[in-house]
Order: sequence, then C-alpha cells, then structure tokens
Amino acid sequence: MHEAKHILSTDQFERDELLELFEEADEMEKILEVGGGDYLHGKIMATLFFEPSTRTRFSFESAMLRLGGSVISNADMVNTSSLKKQESLEDTGRTVSRMADVIVMRHPEAGSVSKLASFCDVPVINGGDGPNDHPTQGLLDLYTIWKERGSLDGLTIGMVGDLKYGRVVHSQCKLLKHFDVKFVLVSPKALAVPEEIGEELAGVGREVKLSEKLEDAIGEMDVISMTRVQEERFKDRSDYEKYAGAYVLDGELMKKAKPDAIVIHPLPRVDEISPEVDDDPRAKYFEQPGNGVAVRMALLKGILMGEDVK
Amino acid sequence: MHEAKHILSTDQFERDELLELFEEADEMEKILEVGGGDYLHGKIMATLFFEPSTRTRFSFESAMLRLGGSVISNADMVNTSSLKKQESLEDTGRTVSRMADVIVMRHPEAGSVSKLASFCDVPVINGGDGPNDHPTQGLLDLYTIWKERGSLDGLTIGMVGDLKYGRVVHSQCKLLKHFDVKFVLVSPKALAVPEEIGEELAGVGREVKLSEKLEDAIGEMDVISMTRVQEERFKDRSDYEKYAGAYVLDGELMKKAKPDAIVIHPLPRVDEISPEVDDDPRAKYFEQPGNGVAVRMALLKGILMGEDVK
Amino acid sequence: MHEAKHILSTDQFERDELLELFEEADEMEKILEVGGGDYLHGKIMATLFFEPSTRTRFSFESAMLRLGGSVISNADMVNTSSLKKQESLEDTGRTVSRMADVIVMRHPEAGSVSKLASFCDVPVINGGDGPNDHPTQGLLDLYTIWKERGSLDGLTIGMVGDLKYGRVVHSQCKLLKHFDVKFVLVSPKALAVPEEIGEELAGVGREVKLSEKLEDAIGEMDVISMTRVQEERFKDRSDYEKYAGAYVLDGELMKKAKPDAIVIHPLPRVDEISPEVDDDPRAKYFEQPGNGVAVRMALLKGILMGEDVK
Repeated sequence: MHEAKHILSTDQFERDELLELFEEADEMEKILEVGGGDYLHGKIMATLFFEPSTRTRFSFESAMLRLGGSVISNADMVNTSSLKKQESLEDTGRTVSRMADVIVMRHPEAGSVSKLASFCDVPVINGGDGPNDHPTQGLLDLYTIWKERGSLDGLTIGMVGDLKYGRVVHSQCKLLKHFDVKFVLVSPKALAVPEEIGEELAGVGREVKLSEKLEDAIGEMDVISMTRVQEERFKDRSDYEKYAGAYVLDGELMKKAKPDAIVIHPLPRVDEISPEVDDDPRAKYFEQPGNGVAVRMALLKGILMGEDVK
Repeated sequence: MHEAKHILSTDQFERDELLELFEEADEMEKILEVGGGDYLHGKIMATLFFEPSTRTRFSFESAMLRLGGSVISNADMVNTSSLKKQESLEDTGRTVSRMADVIVMRHPEAGSVSKLASFCDVPVINGGDGPNDHPTQGLLDLYTIWKERGSLDGLTIGMVGDLKYGRVVHSQCKLLKHFDVKFVLVSPKALAVPEEIGEELAGVGREVKLSEKLEDAIGEMDVISMTRVQEERFKDRSDYEKYAGAYVLDGELMKKAKPDAIVIHPLPRVDEISPEVDDDPRAKYFEQPGNGVAVRMALLKGILMGEDVK
Repeated sequence: MHEAKHILSTDQFERDELLELFEEADEMEKILEVGGGDYLHGKIMATLFFEPSTRTRFSFESAMLRLGGSVISNADMVNTSSLKKQESLEDTGRTVSRMADVIVMRHPEAGSVSKLASFCDVPVINGGDGPNDHPTQGLLDLYTIWKERGSLDGLTIGMVGDLKYGRVVHSQCKLLKHFDVKFVLVSPKALAVPEEIGEELAGVGREVKLSEKLEDAIGEMDVISMTRVQEERFKDRSDYEKYAGAYVLDGELMKKAKPDAIVIHPLPRVDEISPEVDDDPRAKYFEQPGNGVAVRMALLKGILMGEDVK
C-alpha cells in the first residue's frame, strides 16, 4: 500500500502549506470564473456521509465536478449501507478504495475517518468526524479571512459563542496559531475554550483574552467568528436555551465593530446572527460557501494531481 | 444581485414564448437522437427535493446530463439536511447558489420555491410547490399536444378527474388559455375546477363546458387529459374512495373517442386508466416522460446559455 | 419495441460468452490503468435500488463513469418514489426507459427485475432480486477465479456456509457448471444446497462432494468460496446464532489449505473470515470489488456499444 495523502486533521497543516493552499484556492476562483476546468477528468470521488450534511457534501461534489471529475455519492450511509449488516469501517474503506480515486467521509464518531483512512490506498478527506475535527471548514474560514483582509498576521480574531463544544472554533484555533494573531474569546464561563486549546495557543506565544460580554469586546476584533450553540451538544435542554440566546449579533452590536472588521460563520445560522446584519458589507458568511468550493478544489487538485499542497 | 431567469410559475409564460419553447424542445429531440450535446459542459445543476419524486428529479437530471452538464442532488432534503437544524429557506438558497449554476426545487408548501428564488442569484426552477404549481409538467403536457397534433389552436381539450385539487389541471388551464381552444371539464360537482380558474378562462374568451359524465363528453375531445384523484388531497378516506373510481378510462370508452384524439396523463397512473388502453395508438402518456426531458433541456439551455426562451 | 439486451439471470450465460466476458473485463482493467475511457460519453445509466446496497450501486456507477458515461441514481426507491403512490413496476420501467440508456435495478422480490425489463426498451441489469439471483456478483466471482488461476477447468471449488439460502452460491453454481470443475460443498445438513441445484450440476456431469467439516475438506480446495450466514434468512434468531459460528475461516484452517488456493467472499464480511486471514496472499476478497468494476464495465460496454458480449 503506497502512502496516500489524506486530509484528516487541522493538525497536519503548517504555516507555509496554508499560505500555499490559499494561493492555490485563489487560482481556483479564477478557474471558476471561466467555467471550471478538466484537470480531474476521469477521476472519481466517493462521498460517504454517515451523518447527513447537504452543505458539506454539495461543496465537495461541486468542487470535484468543477475540476472535471465525477462523483459517486451516499448521502445517508446509516440508513442505506452494509454497516447495518455490521461491516467494519476497515472493510468499507478497502472496498470503496477500489471504486474511487478519493473518498470524502463524514461520521459522528471522533477518529472514525482516520480509522477508515488507515485501510485505504486512495486519499481520504475528513468531512467532519463528530466533536473532533472538520479540517476543510477550518481551512475555508482561514481562506475567507486571508482573502478579505489580505493577510492573517497582525489581526485580532474574536470568537463568540460555544467555544467549549464548538468543533469549528477548535479547528480555527489550531490553524490560526501558525499566524501572529491575538485571540479574543467571548463565551459564558461554562462554555469557555477547552484548557488544552488554550495551552496550545499559549505554547506558541499567542495572546489570548477572555470575555463574557460581546458588547465590550467586539470593538477590538478584526474578525468576528460567530458560532452556533448546537442543541445536540447539550444533555439538558434548559442549559441549551439559557446559552443559545446569550450572544446574538445584531445591527446595534455591529455599530460598535470596526469599519473593516469581517463577520464569519460556518452556517447553518439559526438566530445567533440577526438577519439585519446580512446586508452589512462586513458580513462575509454568505461568501464562505463559495470560498469552500475553491478551497476544496485546491485540496482535490493537490492530492489527485501529485502537487503536494499539504 | 443580477436578475436570474427563474422558472417559477405557469403564469410567467406568454403565447409566443410557449411556441418558441416547443420549437426548441423539438430541436432538443433531434439532439437526443444523435446522443446528446455538450452545450452545458462545466455547468452544475443542484436538485433540492423536499418531497421525493423520482420521475421529476430523474427527468431534470437526465436533461442536464444530455446537454453535457453535471448534477449535485439531494433527493430527500427533509431527512438529510440542515433544515432539521432550522436553517431558513433563504439561507439554503444563498448557500447553494454558490455551488451550482441552476437550482431545481420541489417542496410541499405553496410559494416556497419563489421564496428561495428571491435569495438566489442563480436561476431557480420550480419542480412542484405543493398544491400551487408545477410549471414544467404543464409545459410538457402542452408540448405533447403540440407535437402530436401539430398545433394547439382549434382543439377541444377534455380534462377529467379531480379538477378542484389537481395542480396539473390548473397549470394546463393557465397555459392553454393562450390558445384558441375549447374546454370540456368532466368531474363530480364537488371536484369541479375552482372558480378563479373558470373566470381566468372566461376572461380571455375561452368556451368552457362542464360535464359529469365522461361517456357523454368524450366524443368531442381532441385531447383527453386524465388526472389521478390523489388520496393525499382528501381528509376523509371515504370521500376519496367514492370519487377515485368515478372516471376510469377503459377500452369501451375509447371506442367513443375520436380516432385522432390523444390521451395524456401526468403519471403515476394508478387505476384511472385501464391497462388495456396502453396499446391504443392514441395513448400518449408513456411518450410524455421523454417529452419532459426535451422540454427541460430546452428550458435549461435557454436559461443557462442566455437564449431567452421565456 | 426492439429487443434490448438485458442481463437478468446467470442462466442466460453460456461457456463461450463467459470466457469472452472475462477477456473483455481484462481489457477493462487495462483501460482503468490509464485512467478510464470515453466509450460511453453521452450515455446515462439509471440505478433503481428498492433495497439499499452501497457496494453494488457504487460498483455499477463507478463502471459507468470510468467509461465516460453519466448516472441518475435512486439509492432508496422504497422511501422516495411513486411506488408509494402504488405505481406499478411496469409503468416505472416505461417511464425511466425514456430518461436513461440502461437501467440497473435491485429489488427484494424474486422476478421483479425481469418484470420491469419486459416493459423497458432499454437494457435492464439485475443488481440482485432478493433470494433469486445476482448475476453480476456471480460473474465477478468467476472472473476473480479465472484471473487468479488462469483458467476454470480442472479446479476443485469449495463452497462454505449457508448453501441453502445463499443467493451467491446458487449464482456461482449455475455459472461454474459450464466448466470442468469439481464441487466440494461444506455446510450443516440443514443448510445444504437445494436439490434442484444439485441436480443441475449432476445433469452436466459435475462431481459433487458434500461435507459438514471445513477442516476435513479445505485441503483439496483450489477455491474457497466463503459466504455469510445472513440473519435475515432465518425466522428464528437462535437458529441463526447456532449456524453463524459454525464455519469461520481462520489462520489455523488456512494452514491446511493448498499453497495456491484462493479465498473469495462476496462481502460484506462479518466474522466468517477472521481478520488474520486478510494479509494472507491467498485472500482475494478485497480484490473482488475492483474486479467487479471491471466486469460491469465489460457488460455495460457490451450492451451499450452493440458488441454482443452476452
């Protein structure tokens, strides 16, 4: 088995690779403007989603098709697959490896994608493995900042919401630590960023400021990274309701934000950003799905055409 | 946001546009005979079906593929999407707009497709929005008549079955009113065509005749448009059963029909047309799925290649 | 309606056709090595799966895409189709015929695929019809043996497990009978091969030996065809548990097998083959998914390009 170039974790990316990836994604946007390319003609991507996600699946599939490749897709592995017949992830990986050139997998269980990848001799991309990681989301978040602000170094990054359970936040932190940024983390104490993430940031010398009040902290943020407080992370519904309403970005708060700040959000957005913010030119969250296609094109082109982007 | 050319309603089509569309669909059939074309190479269609329909989805997807385009597909949005996480249709539209060049949506709620379209900067096609409209079905019905009879003007159009709740009937009426046709509407009184449709037809001077007996009226029809009495439109199952059996087209009735009449039906057919009619050369309902592909090819080519067919 | 070349049953294949197919599949593997071809550019395959099977569906779709064709797919017809509205299989066939150039169907009911095919004027391929047949699985099993051993004649074929209900076993027997092979059938008496299969083999002069002990019989096998004892075939769970554990191929047993024997299995594998066998060079079951793509490419190319492989 040769060594396939999997995309499994945000931990695998270094600063230089990130910057190269962003340059390549920028190239992809130029290719998109002229109607896509045929770089991956004849290549097949298999999507294995053990947890449905139309946004992530469509984004990967669109990226593959924009490069001239093809797709075989299972949007709902749990209800329509041999896993019901107790097939192991290992065997699923070995089987699908023989039918496709790259596999994108999403699964509710931490570590599951790496487990599958270890038995695949084609590249595997982690499309989200439960509470653990969702590297391509983190990459498109950073690409959005890089694209909108021209650089990452020197920025103050605000993160708001559920910083304890929010997978997206953790992925962002692990990627942003490679840049000279300051973190302003806004959450209720009970939902503060996990200790190991804080230590990781401190370990590379990043300044981290904690706050409980968005209105006090928003004025110094260059990037306002909002996240949803996800009901499924709480065992107790009353806890969810208490925290869900705590940080809602609205027009009033935006008045206190810097004129060149940008607002990002992984989507789906429920009510943590008020619709009145949508038309604010600083709102970039509806640009992110397009940026995600470009980043995934760059990754797919890199791992399938032998150009080592990671 | 530039103005995308959505296909949302039968109301948006005028006589000239319809005739142009039928000519273009006819061209598409010639393209199909030589194995399709590459007109939409590099373009992506997204299908968002909030109500499953294999026939409609396959027809759109086949049309897109026959023109060289690609597809990203969600056949069952209700069970596999972020809508479970309460994402609004508006946000779904904005997101998918960044991943595809055209969106086909089906949804059980009237007006839902237009709602999504108003936030999309790519064209959106209504693949059926509940009781409201299903414009491409109406268009393929008319194309079938035009193709089989050479013209629409001068024909007597019979419509049979559930004319009150039947979305297909309403779409046909709104399109046929642009032509010099006479309507013969056959239904139980309780399932007669809604008043506003009757007024719309009278308003443009169309003759409308009502009947309760198919055997009395069939002899004057040039087109026999059968529709299914759909159980899901009734709250009371006994009402359904009473009406379902009332209008069954069989071999005996076909003896009373004109020799050059044609029978159309939107499918699926349950028992409102007896299988013995299938081999009658006047039965055109199994030609309609093929006509539907041609019409949808014409629409997709028109809205994606800038040729303004509507 | 012209006569389409359906692939419905293992019974339809003769010795010469099988050998031609294997040669063609071998050609397909060469095409795969250079990244696929464009033989079926412009052709559309529809997959209609009334019983989900990611492995079989992906294999057919991969084969179609590798040849440059396209796919429209319904992975779960039962939950997302008009069949809920009581449409007959006949009407579904007539409809989908107008949208695709070839149909692959899987259905839990014996005979259902042939029923649909009789109303289709495009080729239909049986992707498994319940307890009845799964011809392309049988073909890929034989191709695997032919490829690994260079020939089928002269081999001793061991079949192990549930030989009574195992559809795969029956398909293999019906294909292998065309070759000069000896059968060694290992099962509990209650799960022995059905009488009609035994008679079919005897009728063409094949030697058949029955055994209840794998350890006694394994030493003379050139091919060890393992099958899963499927829980869904048993009404009584205790019966299932009693038989499931009876034939587990492990490293100890492999020591008694011939050095040039091969092990095949249709997958998914549960625990009837111990993972320690996976690294044995005689284990070929993880080669089979790739062989399946090649065989299905050969079939699709044959029926869609007019080269009569069957």
